Parts: sequence; structure tokens; C-alpha cells
Amino acid sequence: APNIVLIAKAFRQQFIIPDFSSFVKDIEEIYNRCKVNTSGKIADYIPQLTRYCPESWGVSICTVDGQRFSIGDVEEPFTLQSCSKPLTYAIALEKLGPKVVHSYVGQEPSGRNFNELVLDQNKKPHNPMINAGAILTCSLMNALVKPDMTSAEIFDYTMSWFKRLSGGEYIGFNNAVFLSEREAADRNYALGFYMRENKCFPKRTNLKEVMDYYFQCCAMETNCEAMSVIAASMANGGICPTTEEKVFRPEVIRDVLSIMHSCGTYDYSGQFAFKVGLPAKSGVSGGMMLVIPNVMGIFAWSPPLDDLGNTVRGLQFCEELVNTFNFHRYDNLKHLSNKKDP
Amino acid sequence: APNIVLIAKAFRQQFIIPDFSSFVKDIEEIYNRCKVNTSGKIADYIPQLTRYCPESWGVSICTVDGQRFSIGDVEEPFTLQSCSKPLTYAIALEKLGPKVVHSYVGQEPSGRNFNELVLDQNKKPHNPMINAGAILTCSLMNALVKPDMTSAEIFDYTMSWFKRLSGGEYIGFNNAVFLSEREAADRNYALGFYMRENKCFPKRTNLKEVMDYYFQCCAMETNCEAMSVIAASMANGGICPTTEEKVFRPEVIRDVLSIMHSCGTYDYSGQFAFKVGLPAKSGVSGGMMLVIPNVMGIFAWSPPLDDLGNTVRGLQFCEELVNTFNFHRYDNLKHLSNKKDP
Amino acid sequence: APNIVLIAKAFRQQFIIPDFSSFVKDIEEIYNRCKVNTSGKIADYIPQLTRYCPESWGVSICTVDGQRFSIGDVEEPFTLQSCSKPLTYAIALEKLGPKVVHSYVGQEPSGRNFNELVLDQNKKPHNPMINAGAILTCSLMNALVKPDMTSAEIFDYTMSWFKRLSGGEYIGFNNAVFLSEREAADRNYALGFYMRENKCFPKRTNLKEVMDYYFQCCAMETNCEAMSVIAASMANGGICPTTEEKVFRPEVIRDVLSIMHSCGTYDYSGQFAFKVGLPAKSGVSGGMMLVIPNVMGIFAWSPPLDDLGNTVRGLQFCEELVNTFNFHRYDNLKHLSNKKDP
Amino acid sequence: APNIVLIAKAFRQQFIIPDFSSFVKDIEEIYNRCKVNTSGKIADYIPQLTRYCPESWGVSICTVDGQRFSIGDVEEPFTLQSCSKPLTYAIALEKLGPKVVHSYVGQEPSGRNFNELVLDQNKKPHNPMINAGAILTCSLMNALVKPDMTSAEIFDYTMSWFKRLSGGEYIGFNNAVFLSEREAADRNYALGFYMRENKCFPKRTNLKEVMDYYFQCCAMETNCEAMSVIAASMANGGICPTTEEKVFRPEVIRDVLSIMHSCGTYDYSGQFAFKVGLPAKSGVSGGMMLVIPNVMGIFAWSPPLDDLGNTVRGLQFCEELVNTFNFHRYDNLKHLSNKKDP
Repeated sequence: APNIVLIAKAFRQQFIIPDFSSFVKDIEEIYNRCKVNTSGKIADYIPQLTRYCPESWGVSICTVDGQRFSIGDVEEPFTLQSCSKPLTYAIALEKLGPKVVHSYVGQEPSGRNFNELVLDQNKKPHNPMINAGAILTCSLMNALVKPDMTSAEIFDYTMSWFKRLSGGEYIGFNNAVFLSEREAADRNYALGFYMRENKCFPKRTNLKEVMDYYFQCCAMETNCEAMSVIAASMANGGICPTTEEKVFRPEVIRDVLSIMHSCGTYDYSGQFAFKVGLPAKSGVSGGMMLVIPNVMGIFAWSPPLDDLGNTVRGLQFCEELVNTFNFHRYDNLKHLSNKKDP
Repeated sequence: APNIVLIAKAFRQQFIIPDFSSFVKDIEEIYNRCKVNTSGKIADYIPQLTRYCPESWGVSICTVDGQRFSIGDVEEPFTLQSCSKPLTYAIALEKLGPKVVHSYVGQEPSGRNFNELVLDQNKKPHNPMINAGAILTCSLMNALVKPDMTSAEIFDYTMSWFKRLSGGEYIGFNNAVFLSEREAADRNYALGFYMRENKCFPKRTNLKEVMDYYFQCCAMETNCEAMSVIAASMANGGICPTTEEKVFRPEVIRDVLSIMHSCGTYDYSGQFAFKVGLPAKSGVSGGMMLVIPNVMGIFAWSPPLDDLGNTVRGLQFCEELVNTFNFHRYDNLKHLSNKKDP
Repeated sequence: APNIVLIAKAFRQQFIIPDFSSFVKDIEEIYNRCKVNTSGKIADYIPQLTRYCPESWGVSICTVDGQRFSIGDVEEPFTLQSCSKPLTYAIALEKLGPKVVHSYVGQEPSGRNFNELVLDQNKKPHNPMINAGAILTCSLMNALVKPDMTSAEIFDYTMSWFKRLSGGEYIGFNNAVFLSEREAADRNYALGFYMRENKCFPKRTNLKEVMDYYFQCCAMETNCEAMSVIAASMANGGICPTTEEKVFRPEVIRDVLSIMHSCGTYDYSGQFAFKVGLPAKSGVSGGMMLVIPNVMGIFAWSPPLDDLGNTVRGLQFCEELVNTFNFHRYDNLKHLSNKKDP
Repeated sequence: APNIVLIAKAFRQQFIIPDFSSFVKDIEEIYNRCKVNTSGKIADYIPQLTRYCPESWGVSICTVDGQRFSIGDVEEPFTLQSCSKPLTYAIALEKLGPKVVHSYVGQEPSGRNFNELVLDQNKKPHNPMINAGAILTCSLMNALVKPDMTSAEIFDYTMSWFKRLSGGEYIGFNNAVFLSEREAADRNYALGFYMRENKCFPKRTNLKEVMDYYFQCCAMETNCEAMSVIAASMANGGICPTTEEKVFRPEVIRDVLSIMHSCGTYDYSGQFAFKVGLPAKSGVSGGMMLVIPNVMGIFAWSPPLDDLGNTVRGLQFCEELVNTFNFHRYDNLKHLSNKKDP
């Protein structure tokens, strides 16, 4: 049982964050500094999203050896939205391999808006983190991964992957959001038809089913605690730290993190890679999943968004975290003395 | 003296690559596999570049603690070309700080060709690794870093930085290449005038001088050995491993590596970040500078280029290296067993 | 009755083409020169279009005073396709006026492909002759011109306009083409959703009904003879020359002809305006409607298309016609002696 | 002598505008209505242009049979600027023919800004009325029409064409404007280098000379009276109405008018073709040349410009003129009764 693993490590004092309680103190300070930031606007393209409280603010942390810390509104449910994109991409990679997946979708930032009506020079969507690419990933699930499954089965199948990645914590579904998303999705339908015209999808793709499946993935419901375990599984090479289950192969996680690094925060991705230097994925419901490879997963949630669609408090949290600790990808481990090595 | 540092470490067996001789054996094998790859075409937009021998192929390695290995044509001189871009960018960051520098130039991939006539949404060049951005960086050097220097002085000043970064190894200048570059530079002049029209440059910028300075940086001459020390200085947070001189602050290097990670290999940058996952910068003379942060710097040189302008053998070397060792940024350090940890 | 008008004019020898029989002889010669041109490819995006015979070739002429001439396959039915676009645009102008219509759609060439996924700087489709603009025009018919009509009624209403314009000649409907068009219309659906997202449509627009209506207009069936009368009605300021019915106000026709002049032959429009200098509209079924204002209407039909989607023989006919007669908009009437003034 | 021609026509009462004095009365009314329009802003990209008086307002008319009327500031000198573009294009057409000229430059609206850094799909400038196309035309003059001439000779040669077209009236040169234009021409240099990179120019093109020649054409000086004769020569198929000299062949004029029709008023060209329906060319110094083929030439001048760079009063004049008289290309001559037929 995982507890034994955890306890054993604790006895041997081999935790990745040796002094967890002092680390937590720093996190609490950052949390409180972000709390007073009241800028940003809640997404309003569907009514369900507008009902969130702008004060909601939660952060959950889970290390690769299963140490956990949560503060704020960490059990409030919200929908995954774009935070589902790296997860469906991971399933597709696990089942089909990167060669097949990337014969359908690119792996580069688009240099354009996240939902721009544009394909790359090979007539493929630029990457799996933008809407076009995520719809494409959904079509791979439908037509290649599980071609014989019904829509209901493939939804269950997907949810079960998310659940395993979260160590069995809360993954639900918000049907009202699904129906609203589907209703308000002019641009996504335009993308879908445009890609079908350009023969982007695998043969036998049923566009209507693919679009529904895409909206369903966006409408899955979860909370900060569950998502922090998912982020930690990614930090841990695809192995869930709370159950020790090998959910994804490390190679899959490498590819997912690479794309999250360059494309995870909409049009802010370039600056995020520059300033924070870590793989992340944000969603329009206010979520921000942050992965510190080999160390920990973090999930921050707060509904108010900045102009580019990223959670204001979540973004501030990431930037302050990296200013405090030597977590930036390109922090020098020996010579940068004014940052903490937790 | 650095020798003492090296010897001390050797005695204490604290090298970053503990078994350097077996590591070298792997490198030799990769080197030889790349050697037989005869695809690619030598750049021909100026006559000087066409005179390189397509067989030329050299690789030099320098670890952060100064261990070195070289194989092949590592003392042949070639011009820096685009490999100078991260270096002038580093000087600008060191002297002006990222706030000033990035008020003039962005930090994101452009999603377009490296020399596209296009600015980002803020009417700035997309990043300092594309031509427009590098010309801009040169203007910062001229107008802000050293406004009182003559052209000759600023060239010497720049060269002295490159020299310190290389631990005093060979940095020269190829005047024929400079003159030819300047002659053949229609696109670069178009970029320069376009940026001047859009008021991209600092006040008091003399466009002609900036362009000349840009071509001079491209025409600096060096060899694999020297460049591997420069790469190692970057791997080492800005401290030259052979002289222990602190050339750049670690924060400067963090920013340079971030940009090299996302924008270093022209239009292949997205795929490079995905497959190799390390900061690199290629140049049209066949050079490829690769930085493995906290571990080592590598420079590979071979003139034949692929369609996107990257050295064919250098690129293959990077990809094979990462397939052999766990150097990819997002390789999981615990769970990816089929790769070597040197 | 129109016959009397015609006879009266004939007696008074006031016809716009005084020597009609020698004019017809020239037309026959041009017709025969085009007949041997076997280049071009029949449209194949829906099966119904592929079944046309590539030899089919017909030309019908109707002057503003009702003199007529036909040669070749002038009674063969074909679908209107894009030749319907100026007609629905005319109805919208007639009923709503140019101010209202052009608050929804521009009046300029787009400088892009005819079905490009792009709106102009005001977030409107560029003009009513490209697909996006024609779909928009259809939405105006549905939502503003006849908001209370059912789909069936609005179809009948439209057909009755076309019929009056043709002096009661053959206007039918090809249901197989309609169904196939609707099936194969990924790009058009993408355009529709993209415009809905950008709030291009009037309030209360039902996108599905608009798209169906658009495909129905494209699937209306006609022949060369009927279409030549429609073209002649346009040449005649909106008054049908065979029935003397005032179908459209002259101002409406002025606007329609202006747009046809600049945007009527897909991506060839610029060259067509330059070489032929007359308002025209081509369609993918091989039709080419040509209007010589104040003189005559011509309709040429032949299914093989060039790369830009214009009927090969129809285009050749237009260019030879203008080389023979002084019909080019900017032919000088006094000083260009090597052309005929019929 | 031309006077005899004029007198003869007058005796025979064969003037194109039979009742010239009542026509003039209408023109005066329109002139006065435009006079009170004080909107618009004088061009300020070079100091010389800012010195014009915003009240300046002149209109000159010359019919194809040499009847003339002038009102307002019709003898004030101003520089030709973009109004020179159709004239150099005409010379190139006259000497090289449309095949050669249009193997270097397109004939379509660009759908973009007039000075956009973009070439068409054939890597040619879109048309000779935008800056890139006009620079290209200048290179044809230099390298093909008169390859053996010095810069001074080619300038004289060009001026002599302009002079003949104006019937010998005032054509001068403003050296201060030339020098300022050359100074402030970042975008034009960017266009020049970009075209040279794309091998747009004929062999042996000296870019510096071409650019100078282009700026010199822009800096030629004239006034309303002279320009109205030039416009009338165009209306008259290339024959100067005051001297009866055949300056250009009618085919040349046809091509020039076609391009002016679609591309003559910068980004307003589409709307201008729609609303006014006549060939025109505006310039940044406030000029507007209007050609009514077979009838008359008009030149209006007033420095304040609208946002798109067209003279505010000149534009209003054109629109009111066409609302009053049946001059729109697609006005129906029989059936549009509420307009005057002068």
C-alpha cells in the first residue's frame, strides 16, 4: 500500500522536499499575497461560468513522494475546460505513440490566438493545446484508439484514465456546462468544419460525435485536490504518487510536458516559458495546473481571468513561486544564490 | 588558477560526469554515426560560405567543471553567423536588464519564418533569435549600452565579451564574409527599414551603423573548441569553467537559455524543443551550440544544412545524444530506465 | 405586349445593334474558335457536377431591345451556383437599400481566395460575390426581407424574382445538387459558424435555415437562353427587355454591376476587369453571365473550368468579344479604330 | 492649331457638353458645398507638406474637346505625389507594352494597405498604383525603357511626357520635397529591398537610382489647371485636347484607366469604384484626378486628407458630381431619370 511507501521514505528522510513545513510556510505567504489581487474578469461566454464567486481561491500541492498541502477553496468543484487537453493528449500518445499522433497534429506554438482559424504549413493544427488540436486529439480517440466504442463508452473510458491519474479522487461531470458549451461553440464548429474540409481527421471520423466528446472533456468536473495529484503524476513520470500506479509511460509524460511548456497558457505561453520556465496548463474556468518535474504537482484555482484567459491569481502564484524557489527550468543550481532550494 | 580547481575536483572525484571516459566512448559512436550522413546542402547565398568542405565535421564538449573532449575538425575556423545572436542578447541583458531589453523585443516564437517581414502585436520583433530581433539587440548595444563608443570600439567591446566567455580561446573576424553578408542582405535591410518606420529602435539609432555591427557579429570567426567553452559557460550559469571568471549573472543566462529553448533552431525550434528538449542555437555556417544546464556545453559543426537551415549532422547529433542519455528537459529522472545517466 | 415594342423599334430602325446579322456572324466565329478549346476540368466536388459533358458549349445573347441570338447547347439545364449571388444581392438591395445591406457586407475585392476564412477590417465579409458574403445576403433575406416567411415561402419568393428577371423563361430546381452541396459544404459551414461567432448576421438568424437557403439558391436550375434575358435585364437598368417589366430599380442594378465588375470571376476578377472591363459573374457549373450596360446581356455555358474555377470557353469568349468590339469599359469611343462598333 | 478645332466644333455645336454654362453652374454649387467642409488633416510625414493652407481648394475641368472651367486655388503649385503613378505607368505601357510591364507587376487590388510589405502570389507587387508597384514601374523605366540614360536624362524624359500630356502647362519640380521624401522613406526602402530580395526588378536595376527616380516623380510640381488637361488627355484616349497631340495610344489609356478604376484611391478604392464608378487617382498632397472617359478630365485639390489619405473635399466633390450627373460607370443611360445628362 502507498502508505507504507510514504512512511518508509519518511523514516529514511528521503523526501524530495526535506523540510516540508517550512516550504509550506512560504507557500502560504504566496497564497495570501495572491488572495488580495482582485483584478481579472470571470469568463462569461456561457452562463454557468459566470456563477463562480470571484473570491474563490485555492491551491493544492502534491509532491512526487505523496506529501500534500492544500489551502483555500480546494474542494470546490469546477470544470476542467482546457486543463483536459493535456490529459486526452496523453491518452492518445499512450495508445497510439507520438508518430501516429503527430502525423495529425503539430508540436509547435502557433504564434497566433489560441482559437485562430488557421492550420500550420502541413495543414495540421499547430499543437494539441489549442482548440483545433484538442478537437483533433478527440477525433483520434474516437476513430483510432477506441473505434468500436459507443459515445458513452468512450466517455467512461476517458474518465477512468483521469480518475487513475488522480489516484481515485473526485472527477465528475457537469452536464449544464456541457450543454452550454455545445450551444455557444461557433468558433469550435468553424474549426471542426474547416479541419474536415482540409482532411485533418482520420477516416471514419464522425464530426458531430467528436465535437460532443470534446465538449464533454471540457465539462468534466474536479477540484484542486484531485488536480494536484494529476499534476504530481505528471511530475512523477506518469506514476501516481498516492497509489504508485503506472498510469502513463515516462516517454508520454515527457512529450506532454514539452508541449505544456511551450503552449500551455494561451497567448501568454511565450512569456510564461520565459518567466516561469515550467510546464503548465490553464483553463477558462480559472484553473492552472503546474508541473515541477521530478518534484511536485501544483493546482491553483481562481475564476477571475486576465485578458488572455489565464487565471489572474494562478498566474501570480506561479510567478511568485519561481521568484522564491529555484524551480525555473533554467535556474542555475549552483550559482543563483538568492533563491531558495527547498 | 583553473588547473588547481580541476585537479582538486578530480582528486575528490566530484565531477559532474563521473565516468568521463565511458561517456566519451558513447559520444564517439554518435559522432561516427553522424559522419556517414551526407545529406544537406551548404549555404550558398554568399560565395564565402560555399567554399566549406561538406565533409567537415567536428564536435567539442566542455563540462561545467572543465572536462573536455574533442573529435573531428574542431580547430577549423568558421563564422559565428546566428550563433552570435544569444551572445549579443546576453550582453544587452547583462548591461540593461530584461525590463529594458524586452521593452524593445519580445520573447516568443513567431510561428513564422525566421526572417519574415513581420512584427508582433506590440510592433516589436518577436524574439532576439530571429534576424529582426538580433538587429534590434544590436541597436540596443549601439544606442544604450555604449552610446559613446565608435563603431570600432563597440566591435572590440563585443569581441572581448565573447573572448571572456570562451576562456580566451580563438575568436577572430572574417572580413570577406562581413563584406559579402552586407552585400547580400536585402531582406535584412528591408527588416531594418521596416523596424525604423515602426519606431522599434531606441532614439539616436544610426541604422547604417547598426546593420554593419550586426553583419560584423555574424562574421566573427571561431572554432568548435572555443565555442564548446562558450556553451559550457552558459551551462554553468555564466561562469567560464576553464577560467572560473563570472562573465554573466545567472539570471542573464536563465533568460538566454529560455529563449534558445523555444527559438534556437529557426523553423525547427518547436520540434527541437519537443524532441531534444534543450537550449540550442544553430547558424547558417553549420554550427550548433547545445547547452545542457548544470552539466556541459557542446558545439557541433558541419556545413551541410537541411531545408530549414540547421546543420544536418549537428541536428542528428543532438537527437541521438538525447536518445542515449537522460538529457531531455522532461526526461523523468527516476522512471525512464532505458536511457543512460552519465 | 413586348412584341409590339420590338416591332415598332424594328420599323424605326432604332435597335442598339443596327446590323444584328453581321454582329451575329462575328459571334458565331468567336463561338467556333472557343469550341475547339478542350482545356479545363469539370468541377468534381459533388458527383452531380461531374456528369456534365465536357463538350457542352452554348452562348445566348439578348439585347436591351430584345433582339436575341443563341448557338450551341443553349437549352441544356444546369444549376446556377455562384451566378445566383448577384441575383439574391439585387433582391436584398431592392428591398432593404444599399445602406442596410452594406452595413452587413463590404463592397471590395478581398485580395484572397473566394472562400477564404477571413473577414474584412470591420468584421464583415468582403463583398456579396464571395461565399461568405452570399451566405450573409441570404441571412438578410431570411431575417430582414421576409422574416415571417417559412423556408418554403422564401424559396418560392426568390424563384419568382429570378423568373420575372428572365421574362418567364426556365428557372427550375435540382434537388440532387442541393442535397449534395449541403453534404459537401465543410468550408461553407465553417464560414457560417465563423460569421455567427463574429456576430455578422442580423438578429434572429437561424443559421441552419440560412445555409439551406444558400444551397437552394445555388441549386436552382436554368439554361443559357433564360440567363441571357436575366443578363439583358441587368444591361437594361433592371427592366426585362422581353416583357418590359420593371423588376429592379436602376440604382440597384448600378450597385450590382459595380460589384460584378470588381469581384465577379473569383480570383481572376482583377485580371478580368483589366482585360475585359465588363461586369460578369461565373459559376462552378460552367456558367458565365456577361453584362454590356445599355447594350446587351450574354450568357455562355461550358462545364470545363480553369484552375481558378471559371469556365474556360466562357472566359475565352469574353476576351475575344472585347478584342473584336469596343465593349471594354475603357475603350475610347473615338480613337480606337481597330475595333468594331457594332 | 487647336484653337481652330475648338472654334470649328463650337460653330457646329458638337461639344460633348452642349450646354456648358449650365453645367458650370452645377459645378460651382458642388464646389461651394465642398468648400465649407473643414474636416480632414494635412499630411505631416514631411515638413514641406504641413505648410499647405487647409483652406486651399481648387477645381479645374477640361472636356475632351477642350472646353475649360476653373474655380478656386487652381494655380497654386503642389507636388504630384501618387498622382504621378498612373503617368509613369502609362509611359512604361507605351514603350514596353502590357505583356512586358505585367510580367513584373500585377493588375489587381491588394485587399491590403497601400504600402503593405506584401507581394502577390506570383511574388510581384499587386498593381502599379501602390507604392511597391510604382517603384517597380520606375525600375522598368530605368532598366528597360531607357537603360542608357543618366539619372538626369531620365528625369527630363519623364517630365517631357508629363508636359506633353498637359498640353505644355505648368510641370515643375520641388527639390525640398524630393529631399524630404527621400529622408522619410523607411517603408519605401523596406519595400525596395524586399522586392530586390524577391528578384522583382529587371536585371541591371540600380536600386538607389530607382528609389531616387521614384521620389523625384512624386516631387514633380504642378497645379489644378495643368492636371485637368492631363486628366482630359486620358478621357480622350491619350490625345491632348488642347494640342491635339497623340501622346499615348488608346490601348495604353484603357489599361491605365482600368487600374485607376479599381486601385486609385488607396484603401477607399473598393468603395470609390462602388459609389463613384470612375477612374481616379488621389495623392497625399491633396490632389484628386478624375477621368470621365470620352467626356472630360477633372482635377480637384485641397490638402486636408481623411484617414485613408484621400483629399476630403476632392472626394466629396467626386461623390456629389456622380449624384448629380449620370457619370457613374453603371448608371443606366435610359432609365435613371433623377440624374442630369449634361
